Formats: sequence, structure tokens, C-alpha cells
Amino acid sequence: MDKKPFILVTNDDGITAPGIRKLIEAMNEIGEVVVVAPDSPQSAMGHAVTVNNTLFVEPITIDEGPQIEYSCSGTPADCVKLAVNELLNKKPDLCVSGINHGSNSSINVIYSGTMSAAVEAGIEGIPAIGFSLHDYSWNAEFDHLKKYIQKIVLNVLEKGLPEGVVFNVNIPKVKDKKFKGIKVCRQARAKWVEEFDKRVNPHGREYYWLTGKFVNMDKGEDTDEWAVANDYISVVPVQFDMTAHHFIDDLNQWDF
Amino acid sequence: MDKKPFILVTNDDGITAPGIRKLIEAMNEIGEVVVVAPDSPQSAMGHAVTVNNTLFVEPITIDEGPQIEYSCSGTPADCVKLAVNELLNKKPDLCVSGINHGSNSSINVIYSGTMSAAVEAGIEGIPAIGFSLHDYSWNAEFDHLKKYIQKIVLNVLEKGLPEGVVFNVNIPKVKDKKFKGIKVCRQARAKWVEEFDKRVNPHGREYYWLTGKFVNMDKGEDTDEWAVANDYISVVPVQFDMTAHHFIDDLNQWDF
Repeated sequence: MDKKPFILVTNDDGITAPGIRKLIEAMNEIGEVVVVAPDSPQSAMGHAVTVNNTLFVEPITIDEGPQIEYSCSGTPADCVKLAVNELLNKKPDLCVSGINHGSNSSINVIYSGTMSAAVEAGIEGIPAIGFSLHDYSWNAEFDHLKKYIQKIVLNVLEKGLPEGVVFNVNIPKVKDKKFKGIKVCRQARAKWVEEFDKRVNPHGREYYWLTGKFVNMDKGEDTDEWAVANDYISVVPVQFDMTAHHFIDDLNQWDF
Repeated sequence: MDKKPFILVTNDDGITAPGIRKLIEAMNEIGEVVVVAPDSPQSAMGHAVTVNNTLFVEPITIDEGPQIEYSCSGTPADCVKLAVNELLNKKPDLCVSGINHGSNSSINVIYSGTMSAAVEAGIEGIPAIGFSLHDYSWNAEFDHLKKYIQKIVLNVLEKGLPEGVVFNVNIPKVKDKKFKGIKVCRQARAKWVEEFDKRVNPHGREYYWLTGKFVNMDKGEDTDEWAVANDYISVVPVQFDMTAHHFIDDLNQWDF
């Protein structure tokens, strides 16, 4: 690439989260960076978009970096739509989302705001990557991740991605020396088993908190869950054609 | 099936929407029905789940039907999680979601609350179908759809669905006699081109409304968009393994 790549950065933990600040730092070394990210946490928002409410967007300066930043009242998918269709005067060469504070491996891809931003960019025809660190704490250690993230980003900038494909990258919570490498994976077959914590409010009305236990039903060593559990960084190519193509022939035999 | 199938009904337009009332009517003729649906519209919520807020659920009676109903403050995916893990004392044989007032064909599957409920049921191992009528009006005509919906439901109850697959059913806005039939399809390659309507609020602050134009880039006659445009009811088998399996081999050649 002759000139500096133009990189859009977003996330779902909010524009001030340490994870996105580190991602911006890493991207500033590679390209020209614009940030359009939510003004507040948007975790577990799935691919929600704001159609029945107003959207506020403000230029904002958070640190001394060369990046340009906008804070947005919407969801991660809103941020990408606004960036591409309203705020930016050229199409980004890449969109990166994260670094998420917590897992987006296996079935979490469905619930993830981080990945919804990457998928939205993919729909817009922009190569896109969601990065997630398997550490939910606000003060998670991100510094040692930079070289792996840059390696994946430079690979995508050089080779591109097929139409309709984005990357879901998950990073184990381990010290730098323990990383075994970067592993191409498929999405593990897993789910959340919910446990609802039932309470009574001061006015006598019952309510619930959603809690849950993650259950991996998939023993495959080619899955993202296996990779992360074994100190690899997982890269899953994700598509948003959700058609179960393998079932089309059988289904055509049904009597409709 | 010897005894009456146990059917969970939900939607994203809210429990009082005409579309879900008609779906409940149609399901009462087939099985034992429990409704757990949002207390307010949840369109375009994608696969959002409520992790940072409380969830209220109340038994409710809306009409004289034999069904049992609960109204829930959460998203469609929340409704399914609450139903399966807290409210119901047995696992449903089927989950149906809808009838949505508006399209969920092609890329809309990603943004759809209706389909997120069906997908959530699929993750729970319950055969599931989302139904959507391509008519956004509250007073859309639903009566003539009953026989087609029942035909699809009875097929699924009889034959089951493969693990990890749910149905996305889209119905054109045409009179009964014009229906050409039910067609198995793949998801069309399409997207929304956003146009943000920029305004200034009474306090001088700029804001946006998200609007958009749907663009179908896919001329295939095996797509849901083609089917609905040509007066067929489309059935797309949808999977939630989002891995782009076709790209795994190529990706393994990358230098990570």
C-alpha cells in the first residue's frame, strides 16, 4: 500500500474504555485513524440499530494522539453506519472494533456489540476485525497485545478479505511469553445456560437479573474455545450470509 | 405426535401487536400455547440481551384464547431465555416468532428482533420459525396467512429441524389468490444504504435520524428477495454457526 491506510476504530465498551484506547495507539502506528465509538457501554447489544430514537454525535478529544474522534449516542452498528455514510469523506480501508473487555468467542459472536460493528463494516464492503481479550476487568493488561494485533491487521491490509467475511479475533488472558501463536479456527458449538436471579423490588414487584453459565458442547481442537483455552489467539472468519446452505437440498424435498 | 405439541410464541413488535395475536390464533388450533413477548416494540434490536438492567415479567390476559401469556420488559431474545429457563416447566416442541409487521428477508435477518428470538430458541435446541409479512402497517391483513403458516409449522413439527438451523419465513403483501406457493431460498446479498436526516434540536444541538434505502445486489432467482417480489412465501434455513468455512483452507496459508 503506497499511502497510509485509512482506519476506522470503534468498540462496544464505550470510547473511554482502556481497550479501545490501546487499539487506537496500535492503529496510529499503521495508518490514519478516525474513531467513531459509543459514548457509553453497549455490551450484549447484538446487531441493534437505532431506528426509533435520535442519534447524537460529537467531535471529542480524549488524548493527545493524531486520531480524529467522535462520540456517538448509538450502538456499535450505528457508529459504523454514521461513520461510513455521514462523517467520513472517504471509505475506510479497514475497520477494527475493540479491544473488547471480555470474550466474543463461539456463540458470543451473536450477542456481541464488538462483532456487530465489524459485521456492519463488512456489509459496507470494508475489511473488518473484532478484537476481544478474555479478561472482563476494566484494568486488563493490553500492552503486550500490540504486536499480535498489528500482525493480524497488516495481514488483512495486505491480502484483503473475501466479500462477506470479517474476522473474530479472541485473545487469551496470558502473559506475553505464554502465547503459543495465532490459530485459524471455527466457531465452537456452545451456549449460555441461564440462571435468573429473582428478586422483589421495594414496591413488592418481582424482577429478574439475567445471569448464566457458559457451556461448551464442542470438544473440537479446531475451535476458538479450544484455541483460547490453550493459549492461542483465535481467528475465526465470520460470514453474515446466515443461510444453512447444507440443508437446502433436503429442504427442497419437503412438501410445502 | 401423540399429544398436543407445546408451542412458545413471541415477537418483537410487542405482545399487543395484531401480528402476534393472529399467530397465537393459528397456533391454538395446533397445540398448547404459551406466549412470552415484549411489553413494547423491540424492532431492530438485533440479538440484544439485557445484562445490565432488570427484567420484569407479568402474567397478562389480552383476549379470551386458551393460551397462557406473559408480558416481559426485555428484548425478544430475553423473552425466549426467560421462557425456557424460568417460566416454563417443560421444553417447548416449537418456538414461533412474529408475525412481524415488515420484512426480515435477506440482510434484515441480522437486525431483526423477530429472528433473534427464533435463533435464541435454536441455540436452546428448540425448532424455531420467524414469520414476517412485508407490510409495515399496524392494520396489515393477516387472516389469509393462517393456512400457509400452519402448513410450515406442521411440517417442522413432523420432520424436525437439523441442529443449529431455524427458519426465516417472509411473506409478500398480496391477496390470497395471488400466492404462488412456498419456496425454499437462500438469503439474498443486499444491504441498506443509509441516509442520515440531520436536524437541530431546540437547544441548538445537532442530531440525526437514521433512514435508509434497501439495495438488493443479488439477481439470483433462488433468493428470498426474488421469491417475495414474485409472490412466493420464502423459507430460508438460517444457521448461527457464522464461521465462513469456505475460507478456512485459504486462511491457513496466511503467515500469522
